[in-house]
Amino acid sequence: MRDVASRLADRLPADRLLLDDDSLRAHRHDRSGWEPAGLPSAVVTPRSTAEVQAVLEVANETGTPVVVRGAGTGLSGAATATAGELVLSTAALNAITELSAADQLAVVQPGVVTAELDRAAGEHGLRYAPDPASVEISTIGGNIATNAGGLRCAKYGVTRDSVLGLEVVLADGRVVRTGRRTVKGVTGYDLTGLFVGSEGTLGVVTSATVRLRPAPAETATVAAFFDSVEKAAAAVGRLRVQPAIAELLDADALEAVDAAQNTSFRARGAAFLLVQTDGHGAGAEAELVRADLAPLATGVEVTTDPAVAGELLAARRFALPSLEKQGRVLIEDIAVPRARLAEAVAAIAAITRRHGVTAATLAHAGDGNLHPIFVIDRAAAEIPEAVWAAAGEVFETALRLGGTLTGEHGVGVLKRKWLPGELSPDTLALHHSVKRLFDPRGILNPGKAI
Amino acid sequence: MRDVASRLADRLPADRLLLDDDSLRAHRHDRSGWEPAGLPSAVVTPRSTAEVQAVLEVANETGTPVVVRGAGTGLSGAATATAGELVLSTAALNAITELSAADQLAVVQPGVVTAELDRAAGEHGLRYAPDPASVEISTIGGNIATNAGGLRCAKYGVTRDSVLGLEVVLADGRVVRTGRRTVKGVTGYDLTGLFVGSEGTLGVVTSATVRLRPAPAETATVAAFFDSVEKAAAAVGRLRVQPAIAELLDADALEAVDAAQNTSFRARGAAFLLVQTDGHGAGAEAELVRADLAPLATGVEVTTDPAVAGELLAARRFALPSLEKQGRVLIEDIAVPRARLAEAVAAIAAITRRHGVTAATLAHAGDGNLHPIFVIDRAAAEIPEAVWAAAGEVFETALRLGGTLTGEHGVGVLKRKWLPGELSPDTLALHHSVKRLFDPRGILNPGKAI
Repeated sequence: MRDVASRLADRLPADRLLLDDDSLRAHRHDRSGWEPAGLPSAVVTPRSTAEVQAVLEVANETGTPVVVRGAGTGLSGAATATAGELVLSTAALNAITELSAADQLAVVQPGVVTAELDRAAGEHGLRYAPDPASVEISTIGGNIATNAGGLRCAKYGVTRDSVLGLEVVLADGRVVRTGRRTVKGVTGYDLTGLFVGSEGTLGVVTSATVRLRPAPAETATVAAFFDSVEKAAAAVGRLRVQPAIAELLDADALEAVDAAQNTSFRARGAAFLLVQTDGHGAGAEAELVRADLAPLATGVEVTTDPAVAGELLAARRFALPSLEKQGRVLIEDIAVPRARLAEAVAAIAAITRRHGVTAATLAHAGDGNLHPIFVIDRAAAEIPEAVWAAAGEVFETALRLGGTLTGEHGVGVLKRKWLPGELSPDTLALHHSVKRLFDPRGILNPGKAI
Repeated sequence: MRDVASRLADRLPADRLLLDDDSLRAHRHDRSGWEPAGLPSAVVTPRSTAEVQAVLEVANETGTPVVVRGAGTGLSGAATATAGELVLSTAALNAITELSAADQLAVVQPGVVTAELDRAAGEHGLRYAPDPASVEISTIGGNIATNAGGLRCAKYGVTRDSVLGLEVVLADGRVVRTGRRTVKGVTGYDLTGLFVGSEGTLGVVTSATVRLRPAPAETATVAAFFDSVEKAAAAVGRLRVQPAIAELLDADALEAVDAAQNTSFRARGAAFLLVQTDGHGAGAEAELVRADLAPLATGVEVTTDPAVAGELLAARRFALPSLEKQGRVLIEDIAVPRARLAEAVAAIAAITRRHGVTAATLAHAGDGNLHPIFVIDRAAAEIPEAVWAAAGEVFETALRLGGTLTGEHGVGVLKRKWLPGELSPDTLALHHSVKRLFDPRGILNPGKAI
């Protein structure tokens, strides 16, 4: 590492390289709970594409593994760094380079916090549609690395659907530009889509051209309560309109929210389904949603009062922090086809009962994306075997129902061992050959994602 | 070729192989007007994934070039076949394998005609959103190969946005499955997106899982006329809502329609902008569209009468056939950022004037995708030099305005020479290395797309 540090020092201004123990410790974890072995050897904070090129040239020449890091809010361990690895932080690449209201797009560096971009767009009546729950703390670069989803994807798509083009530094330091500034375009292969979701294993994004959309003129909110989470899940399948948001919380989640926020959601039902419609037909659509949910619900109400809607949405936004007050959490992230949601929630409940573990379930119900949150005694040194066993059965359930191991958080390190359940040997081999093509020396986030 | 034909005959039932001159002639052109050299050596019509594997194994072992062909409606020459090439027709792979209204998806073979899928979805209140103008004659496989767009993409996305997963036979006969049955999912790299738009150069799609969406409850149509196409294009930039459709026709296109269809659109203005809004807010949005367009228009009307809307849409749908009655056509396909539409139409008009050539312009104005249609004397043996020179300047204009050579038709053979204007040497080199990885012997549609 002496060699790498001195080579980097030759190529970069002195303040770009952090070697002190505090910096190394601060850049080794993400929010997955994964405990990496040892300390990374250095943290480097480039301020330009040319500086990222210099970092990768040195890393490639010396065969040094590089972990690209945005805000470190990832939930799968993809941004964790172990002994000997070099952390490339995008913290100083945090400019909104351009925001064109006329072209409905922005050009941003990877370290921009997602909510900041959305607020900047809001000044022009536009918005950046993808809204992962971490939107206030995560970065565009991290969102691109995981192809982040969020609450609004069923209607407005995931991160990939909002990325028009990228500037990427390849493992050997070459710079490529993919995509374009237009909504449509088919020149060349879709390398933009290939980089999105590749968890830092194929290249380092140094700039992204993202699509902005008109902010909706109106929003209406439907709150429905059910006497079981299975009924709530089944009700989602009855919806005739495409909601902007459809969030499901089970009884354990509601109890956690009530305990932490001094609310009384659990008294209203054993499951809560929050649906939002938007656009000029929001009111009419909300009435259709009410009619679709009513036969299975114990109560449904529609509101267009922003204050009431805000209180209802707060239950969803505070669910994870509320569960984190009860213990250490392991956040899972399966997705199943739309009509299998009720089966999935029933299976999760049976699995947790059988293993004697605790899990609350939150779901982006509109797109079949479930987050079973395992809550573990904070005193436990490691995640108990019973929790891993239950998590494994949850993954098997997702695959059996035609779903996926991870809807929006990524594979990282936590889900690698289940990959062969979803990808056939030939498909996985193709992934590894793509990886070798882009990164022949294997320096980019080795051991992650695939 | 004796060798290849006899090897194929060993592996496949006899009726799969067509070697007669009529069949060979019928499978060498697409609709681009490109004249391939010589006749393909054989046409093979596999009826299963296993038969496609057999074809590719033989082709790969013998180094025989394979051109995959859907309905042959492509406009860039990607499906043309020259001497010695083997045409793999998907005509017999034409089943809708599954249509799940509950999961809002369908599983289809590549030879299914796109409009047939849409009609099948319609029986369940759903629709397949991508609607290229060729929807009644082109196939899903061809749409996937070109990442086809159409009228509704600005709101509902292009083909890539509706493809959830693929089964693909690789050049060496291995089968891989990409993607999933869920709307969200981030396991592995986005190989689905990589195959979509690859124009038959990376693999042969044998099955696609596609997303269906609720059909809109209501539609409203706005017809606006302008005294210049530049004003019409500028008016599009004023829209505050996201229309489902925004189609622009210039004076030359209107004159062609009037001559062929006995209508009188040209008398109403020098440019026609047809906007449709949909969903429960369609009426309210149409009124906003009217208000946004009125200051620049010479007349605007809103209708919710399906008969009137049908007549207006017919002008757009008949524009190309009407132009084809005037001569041989060369259909171009640039896209520019939203706000540069007016500049683009003005530049196209200046270019055609300067070169003394005739071109009418149709545009998917909502997403900046312009189709200048050059009309050439049918007696001309080849496309005149002046037309190619004008087309070249149109491409340069698109790139200068931050746009792309091809919005939805693909590069094929017609646009290869302009590729280096859009893709840098390093980016193009990366494309070629991806191609070599997927197809080391270069048998899949050689000389096309990249």
